[in-house]
Amino acid sequence: MSLDQTATKPFDRLGALLAPEMAAVNALIRERMASEHAPRIPEVTAHLVEAGGKRLRPMLTLAAARMLGYTGDHHIRLAATVEFIHTATLLHDDVVDESRQRRGRPTANLLWDNKSSVLVGDYLFARSFQLMVETGSLRVLDILANASATIAEGEVLQLSAAQDLRTDESIYLKVIRGKTAALFSAATEVGGVIAGAPEDQVKALFTYGDALGIAFQIVDDLLDYGGASEVIGKNVGDDFRERKLTLPVIRAVTRADAEERAFWSRVIERGDQREGDLEHALELMRRHGTLESTRDTALSWADRAKGALSALPAHEIRDILTDLADYVVARVY
Amino acid sequence: MSLDQTATKPFDRLGALLAPEMAAVNALIRERMASEHAPRIPEVTAHLVEAGGKRLRPMLTLAAARMLGYTGDHHIRLAATVEFIHTATLLHDDVVDESRQRRGRPTANLLWDNKSSVLVGDYLFARSFQLMVETGSLRVLDILANASATIAEGEVLQLSAAQDLRTDESIYLKVIRGKTAALFSAATEVGGVIAGAPEDQVKALFTYGDALGIAFQIVDDLLDYGGASEVIGKNVGDDFRERKLTLPVIRAVTRADAEERAFWSRVIERGDQREGDLEHALELMRRHGTLESTRDTALSWADRAKGALSALPAHEIRDILTDLADYVVARVY
Repeated sequence: MSLDQTATKPFDRLGALLAPEMAAVNALIRERMASEHAPRIPEVTAHLVEAGGKRLRPMLTLAAARMLGYTGDHHIRLAATVEFIHTATLLHDDVVDESRQRRGRPTANLLWDNKSSVLVGDYLFARSFQLMVETGSLRVLDILANASATIAEGEVLQLSAAQDLRTDESIYLKVIRGKTAALFSAATEVGGVIAGAPEDQVKALFTYGDALGIAFQIVDDLLDYGGASEVIGKNVGDDFRERKLTLPVIRAVTRADAEERAFWSRVIERGDQREGDLEHALELMRRHGTLESTRDTALSWADRAKGALSALPAHEIRDILTDLADYVVARVY
Repeated sequence: MSLDQTATKPFDRLGALLAPEMAAVNALIRERMASEHAPRIPEVTAHLVEAGGKRLRPMLTLAAARMLGYTGDHHIRLAATVEFIHTATLLHDDVVDESRQRRGRPTANLLWDNKSSVLVGDYLFARSFQLMVETGSLRVLDILANASATIAEGEVLQLSAAQDLRTDESIYLKVIRGKTAALFSAATEVGGVIAGAPEDQVKALFTYGDALGIAFQIVDDLLDYGGASEVIGKNVGDDFRERKLTLPVIRAVTRADAEERAFWSRVIERGDQREGDLEHALELMRRHGTLESTRDTALSWADRAKGALSALPAHEIRDILTDLADYVVARVY
């Protein structure tokens, strides 16, 4: 993900505001990814954790807790928890997707092996679990247990949904909730819970994280087809080549005539892709306006995220979170 | 594992005593392995869960809780939790070991693919986590979080310890604690915790599970070389071919002269195995008495397990657990 394209950069403002706490999160991550007995663990983890991910998810936890007036230090543990869960899922995803690159570097499964990625992912998940237990909050544990189940279920669902033209928008939504939004919403929700916020505010934080995560993933999927503009970037078409059914394609399939449907069936279901097929796919998406309609859907999720914030007290961080929702979808203009 | 070789069969006595509760555990497992959205999940899980594993670990949880007079129903959830964690680790192990058979059936990674095994394992782990949260006991969550970390750490340690002649008995012990004993000890300990047993009894249950698990795994490793008898069974040598350093080999390496050491280095470190090498390895183990000494070590762990039970009140189940410790090591006579 890249969040560097505009001048405002709400993420950087958040980072500046939460710098001391984020430093504590990073220190805790380094401390807990260590293993006395198995040096392979910190090696693999450091490769990924220190590769310059933006730490968006832990930042959301810190932001939610601070915005609701929390003065303890459990939000540091929860932010590290969220980053560990994220890192564990990336390690497993790269095995599942047979990825070779992540954040511009070779993946762990390539540098070491699939075995190390699977087992170190398991280790990080167990470590995240220990961190949550240390907060002593059963409510937090419940939220993160449910998020973990949603994440795994979404990933399995994606396995069967890929390459299957019957995949519709409701399945797509479940997949991206698992893939992205479940951890975003858990990250914001536990920040509110640990701060002892009232129920309506906790609910608003959940809704914000959920809608932000959905908007974020829809935008990512849209950018994979070059966004809503007519310009084809250089990394366009990865999802097409992997035969993933993302929103712009799902909508083009829904509106396809018989000939178009035969095309989608050949390239997505049978995986028989030829020279010029990506360009033809883009042409079909333009014909049916699915890139624009996908952008509109992302915008409406961003609006929903911003709307949820109205239940929260006025706060500098609330303003930044509003801008963050705009920023996430601004990537596709 | 096979626990059918003697007439006593303490495991069957335990099963008879706990039949109604075990039926409830099985019903809960079936209920919770379902997934509304991803049918692949129950397919993969059922393949493994219903393949006739002995349910030894959940049985230990039920036994511990009942022995300490527990009358609630959280032990059912904890028993299902323990079985889910066990099943999740089997799914991931089979990916890591590239196994093709488990419990006499093709493995899930072979029938479906590695992706499904990794992700369904993650799902079961998340489901187990939800079940624990439902018990409302932070102490139980702490024990199972720590056990999960020990399991994953032991698995990673095994990756680097395999094929490395520097692997000593203390590393071996850490590996088998992770591989087997950590979940045995967590299974018995949480049974006592949920029953509200006094601290010394909880500690005794931990020690029993830990020592039983270690004895169990040492015996498994010994049986892979045909046990302490002179007869070579038909499945002998799997660990040798996979170049795993288990106790009989570690002790033979420790006592090796220069020529023997060169042999071990060739077959284990370099993996250059030829016709007759397994027989020569067995000859070296006999020469140094390492099969017998490994059996003696297993027996002393079984004694330690039985000794721990003396801190627990007299109970029919306590007697069966004593017999179970004897039975586990009786496999190698």
